[in-house]
Amino acid sequence: MMNISQPTLLLHEQTCRANIKRMAEKARKLGLVFRPHFKTHQSYQVGEWFRDVGVTSITVSSVKMAHYFSQHGWNDITIAFPLNAHEHARINEIATSVSLNLCVVNTESLKVLIRKLKSRVGIFIEVDTGYRRTGVDPTDTGLINGIVNLIRQHTNILSFKGFLCHAGHSYKARSQSDVESIHHASMRSIVHLSNQFKAAYPQHVVSVGDTPSCSLMDAFTGAHEIRPGNFAFYDLTQCAIGSCYQEDIAIALACPVVAVYPSREEIVIHGGAVHLSKDNLFEEGRVHFGKVVFFTGDKWELPASPMYVKSLSQEHGIIHAEGEDLNKVQVGDVIGVLPVHSCLMADAMKEYQLFNGSIFEMMH
Amino acid sequence: MMNISQPTLLLHEQTCRANIKRMAEKARKLGLVFRPHFKTHQSYQVGEWFRDVGVTSITVSSVKMAHYFSQHGWNDITIAFPLNAHEHARINEIATSVSLNLCVVNTESLKVLIRKLKSRVGIFIEVDTGYRRTGVDPTDTGLINGIVNLIRQHTNILSFKGFLCHAGHSYKARSQSDVESIHHASMRSIVHLSNQFKAAYPQHVVSVGDTPSCSLMDAFTGAHEIRPGNFAFYDLTQCAIGSCYQEDIAIALACPVVAVYPSREEIVIHGGAVHLSKDNLFEEGRVHFGKVVFFTGDKWELPASPMYVKSLSQEHGIIHAEGEDLNKVQVGDVIGVLPVHSCLMADAMKEYQLFNGSIFEMMH
Repeated sequence: MMNISQPTLLLHEQTCRANIKRMAEKARKLGLVFRPHFKTHQSYQVGEWFRDVGVTSITVSSVKMAHYFSQHGWNDITIAFPLNAHEHARINEIATSVSLNLCVVNTESLKVLIRKLKSRVGIFIEVDTGYRRTGVDPTDTGLINGIVNLIRQHTNILSFKGFLCHAGHSYKARSQSDVESIHHASMRSIVHLSNQFKAAYPQHVVSVGDTPSCSLMDAFTGAHEIRPGNFAFYDLTQCAIGSCYQEDIAIALACPVVAVYPSREEIVIHGGAVHLSKDNLFEEGRVHFGKVVFFTGDKWELPASPMYVKSLSQEHGIIHAEGEDLNKVQVGDVIGVLPVHSCLMADAMKEYQLFNGSIFEMMH
Repeated sequence: MMNISQPTLLLHEQTCRANIKRMAEKARKLGLVFRPHFKTHQSYQVGEWFRDVGVTSITVSSVKMAHYFSQHGWNDITIAFPLNAHEHARINEIATSVSLNLCVVNTESLKVLIRKLKSRVGIFIEVDTGYRRTGVDPTDTGLINGIVNLIRQHTNILSFKGFLCHAGHSYKARSQSDVESIHHASMRSIVHLSNQFKAAYPQHVVSVGDTPSCSLMDAFTGAHEIRPGNFAFYDLTQCAIGSCYQEDIAIALACPVVAVYPSREEIVIHGGAVHLSKDNLFEEGRVHFGKVVFFTGDKWELPASPMYVKSLSQEHGIIHAEGEDLNKVQVGDVIGVLPVHSCLMADAMKEYQLFNGSIFEMMH
């Protein structure tokens, strides 16, 4: 193992590049624009791996993130988060050099933006296709026409880009057929809405795509682009859904072992809530915060018996371990933890280390 | 409200200073050394507020944090986390200018450190008084004597400081009497151990003190110092335990409202898992991730009806709201969220804003 002295987020380049390539090829085969979500990795250097397979348009989750990637040569960016007009200054700054798309879910924020906007932006209407997080009700034609009309009155600064949804309830799925029914209902809903605007806006875009649907589904009829993000790293939640195999997970937190308690069947690592995040997963009758792996040469492998993070405090992680696997772990060893939710683990760590020792930065 | 355009961690100076002063006075009255834990705020500027009430010795949770505060003039630091001997280089660096205490829970890591150590450090033996996280079993005199003997063999670089415990199971308490029974059992256990070493080490220190016990208890007979941390900010978990009143909470996350869904009785804010952390609290029959407050002039107040964060994704927070309180929130408003766990919210945000507009930095 490399010279690890404190919790370190390891990124396995080959696995990550394979995940990116697989999704890019799928999009190409299906004739879809691939606009990956960069909120998972938040790193301009990982972004280059997407460029290597031909990606030119991206999705981000905040104005701040749009700014970061615009500084690193990305010039076609959708902010897939409801418009917050308080951020008009930075929106104006980014939009001078970037083809920037914003998401709108009401007229209030758009009206405020219109008064402040100096550069041209594209507007997606976010549609709620069942997740119940954000988005307009696709049957609320009053609101949708209200937004479209506002855009039409300001074509000097606004253009109507189309409809966008995130069927994030697919994260609760635990089988391919669960994902399938969510995906089909979501597609039906957004395509039905899109059809009503085809005559007036023949060029408008239908943008869809969470990681489970993009990993498992092959039919996106009526959509023009997909925006998965998590798939670049995947994680244990995606394994539980069936979106990936454990071998596809591209990041692990390397943690020094600081105590071993054989009678409790527990190991304590330096690796806590500030490193792993407190996201958890209910599997096999218990809640856990990550699964342990052992490092081998240039990757990692699961132990023979179940080893998982059973609780977390700020800096401590408590691991359950059994039998031979418990016996072979010593104070001073470095073991790995696969993420329950890779986006949050990455955000908590703010930096990656590759197996060749390189450090990749993240947005700060 | 100040000019808030994105999620911003507000720190209320007066409330925080009052919390610090109250605890410092309690320690003074009880004749205890006050060695506050700085992992909660992680800011040299907040640290100055402790200096203002006479604090000269501190606790931290990592070698990295010890290094940060040593760079800001703190020269008496205990790292209350089990020794990780891989960090010997930085330990040596800090110990050249700081009176540094380390915590040991086994002989393995201490043996490795002894081979690498160049400057003198103090050694606390961490004792597990019931929390079952880390620490030696106080009845395991074989192990304890093993550690003490190792120290005695290396008095050129090591000195035995005493026994330290963290009765963190007090966080599960939901009444003063719960805290009392945990505190008494914990004190009994560590004082009993300490008494066995009084003849040989008359100067050794007994170091105790989680926030619930330090807030609610008045008897610390046999202890020499207390190390609470969370009390500087407090949070909703401490309110649920009974350690503080809601008015004592010194931080809140200010979040722009980006969508309102009256029929769902929900409000969506820019403020998600990467800002609030996913720590949660089970109260009044439901799990939540924070309670909403409205900003008034120079502080905040609770709404009339319950408003809480019911779910989180990476950047979105979904708030439940009812009746008049729901009706008065508009897209574009800025509302506050009180933390379930202030240490994790602070760590996620990495920066504070005071009501006078000042920015306080945190360790990065």
